Amino acid sequence: MAEEAAVRAQAEVVRRLKQDKADPDEIAKEVAKLLEMKAQLGGDEGKHKFVLKTPKGTRDYSPKQMAIRERVFNAIIACFKRHGAEVIDTPVFELKETLTGKYGEDSKLIYDLKDQGGELLSLRYDLTVPFARYLAMNKITNIKRYHIAKVYRRDNPAMTRGRYREFYQCDFDIAGQFDPMIPDAECLKIVHEILSDLQLGDFLVKVNDRRILDGMFAVCGVPDSKFRTICSSVDKLDKMPWEEVRSEMVGEKGLSPEAADRIGEYVQLHGGLDLIERLLQDPKLSQNKLAKEGLGDMKLLFEYLTLFGIAGKISFDLSLARGLDYYTGVIYEAVLLQQENDHVEEPVSVGSVAGGGRYDGLVGMFDPKGRKVPCVGVSIGIERIFSILEQRVEASEEKIRTTETQVLVASAQKKLLEERLKLVSELWDAGIKAEVLYKKNPKLLNQLQYCEDTGIPLVAIVGEQELKDGVVKLRVVATREEVNVPRESLVEEIRTRTNRP
Amino acid sequence: MAEEAAVRAQAEVVRRLKQDKADPDEIAKEVAKLLEMKAQLGGDEGKHKFVLKTPKGTRDYSPKQMAIRERVFNAIIACFKRHGAEVIDTPVFELKETLTGKYGEDSKLIYDLKDQGGELLSLRYDLTVPFARYLAMNKITNIKRYHIAKVYRRDNPAMTRGRYREFYQCDFDIAGQFDPMIPDAECLKIVHEILSDLQLGDFLVKVNDRRILDGMFAVCGVPDSKFRTICSSVDKLDKMPWEEVRSEMVGEKGLSPEAADRIGEYVQLHGGLDLIERLLQDPKLSQNKLAKEGLGDMKLLFEYLTLFGIAGKISFDLSLARGLDYYTGVIYEAVLLQQENDHVEEPVSVGSVAGGGRYDGLVGMFDPKGRKVPCVGVSIGIERIFSILEQRVEASEEKIRTTETQVLVASAQKKLLEERLKLVSELWDAGIKAEVLYKKNPKLLNQLQYCEDTGIPLVAIVGEQELKDGVVKLRVVATREEVNVPRESLVEEIRTRTNRP
Repeated sequence: MAEEAAVRAQAEVVRRLKQDKADPDEIAKEVAKLLEMKAQLGGDEGKHKFVLKTPKGTRDYSPKQMAIRERVFNAIIACFKRHGAEVIDTPVFELKETLTGKYGEDSKLIYDLKDQGGELLSLRYDLTVPFARYLAMNKITNIKRYHIAKVYRRDNPAMTRGRYREFYQCDFDIAGQFDPMIPDAECLKIVHEILSDLQLGDFLVKVNDRRILDGMFAVCGVPDSKFRTICSSVDKLDKMPWEEVRSEMVGEKGLSPEAADRIGEYVQLHGGLDLIERLLQDPKLSQNKLAKEGLGDMKLLFEYLTLFGIAGKISFDLSLARGLDYYTGVIYEAVLLQQENDHVEEPVSVGSVAGGGRYDGLVGMFDPKGRKVPCVGVSIGIERIFSILEQRVEASEEKIRTTETQVLVASAQKKLLEERLKLVSELWDAGIKAEVLYKKNPKLLNQLQYCEDTGIPLVAIVGEQELKDGVVKLRVVATREEVNVPRESLVEEIRTRTNRP
Repeated sequence: MAEEAAVRAQAEVVRRLKQDKADPDEIAKEVAKLLEMKAQLGGDEGKHKFVLKTPKGTRDYSPKQMAIRERVFNAIIACFKRHGAEVIDTPVFELKETLTGKYGEDSKLIYDLKDQGGELLSLRYDLTVPFARYLAMNKITNIKRYHIAKVYRRDNPAMTRGRYREFYQCDFDIAGQFDPMIPDAECLKIVHEILSDLQLGDFLVKVNDRRILDGMFAVCGVPDSKFRTICSSVDKLDKMPWEEVRSEMVGEKGLSPEAADRIGEYVQLHGGLDLIERLLQDPKLSQNKLAKEGLGDMKLLFEYLTLFGIAGKISFDLSLARGLDYYTGVIYEAVLLQQENDHVEEPVSVGSVAGGGRYDGLVGMFDPKGRKVPCVGVSIGIERIFSILEQRVEASEEKIRTTETQVLVASAQKKLLEERLKLVSELWDAGIKAEVLYKKNPKLLNQLQYCEDTGIPLVAIVGEQELKDGVVKLRVVATREEVNVPRESLVEEIRTRTNRP
């Protein structure tokens, strides 16, 4: 019976929840299954005419979540502006053909719009391809811009880990023909500044180069035709153990076991300038033109990172591949490190929060004459950051205000609605953030309670006597102090008492 | 021959362009046709692999356009916050069924997503229906919130007039059970504040009430079943003359000519409190319960608007219908007025820039038990406002900065890249907005030119001598004044010299 199955499934979920190492995504999946079963059973709420939910993998933001989101955005935008970036915006959908052939194996995750007569459209998958289209379309060869907007991927959502189908990306990119690795180093500086600013705990930025990867594949004996697909396999190393990645390479992708084992040796390596120097001496790699170029640039990059004082948080890591097809040079990915408990020696990665790299060929794919515009950029993936900050706010019981109202216009007696409306209107016109309860005769207690609930610091009280005297009674909610203020100096008094930004 | 046709069409466009009253939309259409013909002919640029464009009815925003857009947003957000609104966000798409049955005849304009397995989704058509869904889903009965986001309509675009398929709406709504017309009046106050703030020229807010419209339809002899569709026809009065609307009512919608003529008399009326008083005495309307209720509330509304000091810009207008199905009470629409030339007596409306109304039934459509949450709100349509401000900026030759960079770190001599990178990094870490050119050995002239082009006010110049002396040469771009500043006080000096927000 379906009901029995549901009961059994529920027991299983509870059992797993009690285990220490329960995987929240697994649990979420089980809960979803349960809810589905419940829906099939009909249950006690069978009167729903339709499902009241947001689409799979998406969510609403409540005012409190928005307050946290805006803090994060402000920190990120401040950093982008500190580095002199302009800002652009592009449509949420592109012609389908604009996205075609840019994402390799991930193309299947693109959302298409229904053909309703007219152009075939798809929702943007990232902000990089629309940026390249924008550059080619407007013949721009030189720009430093940021772009903050939502992108869409029909991926398997894992919302507890901040993985959504609709999510924000905050992109900073530098396009133009410049001397090697200077813009690339600035992108890493930006990641470092933002992750430090947001105080998310310890982090590490892994760096690699597509040319080093390709050189490595070549010297390991991977046929040219398999570079991209083997690169996709290597990209999974942050989620799968090497043994599984190896069996994918050999089993699914037909790579020889010897080539796979040679790759296995390289992708274990990570370090700094010392490792770069060692690989520049590597008898096989040093013979490969691409690898040598990549390693030379990597050395230069680390010199600039040292000047910026951030080399300590950057790790040259040969296992970093990044699946996207369009990268051509340096690639990077920032991960947060978390000591799960003090007994664990190695810091545990809790997920990628930023990534990017160099894509010198992408604009050329859009230019009718194939003219290239070298680009490098970084994308901050903020959903994961939101989740962390949200959990932190919940835990700290910090009270977040969701409005900025400075004063509530109130009255103690009845029949003063018109006087309240007149006064609040005066305050609005003077630029004061003010509210009034939408009741004809609200009780004073309810008005004061509203201030307590929403954090409004001041109450401007009008009454018969105050009106006669040409004053307003100003009450400080926190201290209950009350003072009569002449009506003509009320605005100034409110400003003085709430002169926070 | 196709080529001849193209030449003829081109001549026609040129002829119309020379006429005084050429309609820019018509011309845009003709140009589009021409380009299509050209594409069919092959032409000299036949090497395009694909069309390099944004989807029909959409556009990119350049950094300069973004600067204007942010000004407008800031003014609007400041107003919403002044009135104590919280902010929320919802996904760009909703379950298709969430939007079903909310937009009447406009439903055909909804963008659907392709069925790729999984839920059937549509792009949001406005922010009101997602707001109602959000309230019902979270059982919220009381909120004042704003929401600024893009919405999507497969409408016929008229981009020169600021009508797009992807466009921003800036919505402010008040949900909750309150005393009549207080929140409604605040919404109109908000429209008044925003349009005054943005200095768009003279404007008028037309106000009507669905109950007055329905009462009017009833007393004119429109059958109940035709209320909605006749309402849609009335809604076209701002774009079509009465004669055409009348013939749609009678011809397409099967209304009797007598009923249409009776409607014709009412919809000519507009005015203020005097008109409301007159209609309250109207022998037919005053007998209709709905109309009487609506007129009573309209009177109250105008009393509040008078307290707010804004009644002068509000016109009670019986021709205002607003097509959307979900309105239940007061409705309004703001239009900009423009004297096309001094000889014209009547101000000419150049289009709607804000609209809204009361929708007390919408949340109940989502609630499993049909519980109602009364709502009233306003939506600012900013594309039209952008167009106007953009044209104004172009005309004024005002130079808009697209970055906020305070200082460029430069050098006069070669081989100082490392010193430049060290200094710019120090400035970033101190919160100074700073840039450096991405060249190993840029010429000083090029560095100064970059400042001229982008409006950077200061240059921090490092050279051998300055390094020895522990100073930086600070140059004011506008005056060419140069002064040596000790390195340790450089940050303070830059802050002092650029202490604008």
